Amino acid sequence: MEHIEKILEFIVEIEKLKDVQRKTKPVGLERFENSAEHSWHVCLTALMLKDYANEEIDINRVIKMLLIHDLGEIDAGDTIVYAGQTTEYKAEEEAGISRLLSILPGFMADEFIELWREFEAGETADACFAKAIDRVPPLLHNIHGDGHSWRTHGVTKEKVFSVNQRIEAGSKDLWSVMRGKLEGAVNAGILK
Amino acid sequence: MEHIEKILEFIVEIEKLKDVQRKTKPVGLERFENSAEHSWHVCLTALMLKDYANEEIDINRVIKMLLIHDLGEIDAGDTIVYAGQTTEYKAEEEAGISRLLSILPGFMADEFIELWREFEAGETADACFAKAIDRVPPLLHNIHGDGHSWRTHGVTKEKVFSVNQRIEAGSKDLWSVMRGKLEGAVNAGILK
Repeated sequence: MEHIEKILEFIVEIEKLKDVQRKTKPVGLERFENSAEHSWHVCLTALMLKDYANEEIDINRVIKMLLIHDLGEIDAGDTIVYAGQTTEYKAEEEAGISRLLSILPGFMADEFIELWREFEAGETADACFAKAIDRVPPLLHNIHGDGHSWRTHGVTKEKVFSVNQRIEAGSKDLWSVMRGKLEGAVNAGILK
Repeated sequence: MEHIEKILEFIVEIEKLKDVQRKTKPVGLERFENSAEHSWHVCLTALMLKDYANEEIDINRVIKMLLIHDLGEIDAGDTIVYAGQTTEYKAEEEAGISRLLSILPGFMADEFIELWREFEAGETADACFAKAIDRVPPLLHNIHGDGHSWRTHGVTKEKVFSVNQRIEAGSKDLWSVMRGKLEGAVNAGILK
């Protein structure tokens, strides 16, 4: 019962992810997205697109990765992908997720910190696909939202194409479709 | 590529779940929770508490159920668990999730509508556990939030205990801990 108490304490603590504001607005909404609802959204995106991964993946591991991938932001905050991420920020994020996982019963933390590190390293097939998926919704937000976040942060088309080409490492088919959509955004004048 | 286009259309359409307002406020926040961030929260709650299910469960199926369990609310809206749910509301929710899933390539919808129906029926071990988990965060919101939703909706302690005893069907251990917390809320005068 003591273990369940600790898990519930963790469950309450991670509520704070609902208060971490991201840099894009969900399609049709006037407010910014938070990292908790984003995490749900990428899990379903991965589940629906799993058959388009370049390599064989374990979708259940990918979903677990995506459920926890932003927990470090509770302490470190969200950063925009175009800013690049410093070693200091990464260390802060890892300290953040470690702090959260340390609330859990001792034997539980290891699996999740390993999964988080695998995601961050982005080298395995599962992590490559998870990282590809993580980039898709913010692009859709901009494409369907007049490029609001690109404009606010002065992100050029060159930067958008080069940074998001990483999607190709997880799914060539998905990148092909997304690249087409980005070219459409350039033609429509919302990506410059 | 046509399939990916359809899946992306679905991914954009389900963004609307981020705009479905629930009846409780996340711990520490002054705003109401939305059904998308709730869906993320229950997935992680299930993942962390999986070892306490009464029967053997497939946690990956449970997580899939929880990722999609509220999609019907995009068309039907959220209702409070204490209100009970009419046949009409259930039909509206099923029509809603069917409409969403019909956006996907034809071969994909069946798996998810079956999973949703299994969750709703609440009879299999996976569904029993998923339904138990779904009840936990709103209780924690009230317990850590001065019983705000119980008070607003005039929910009595008798109702809270009888409706949430359903948690026991998924996890006796979890219900034992939650019952203790609810008794604490009664003693503290926030559940009457």
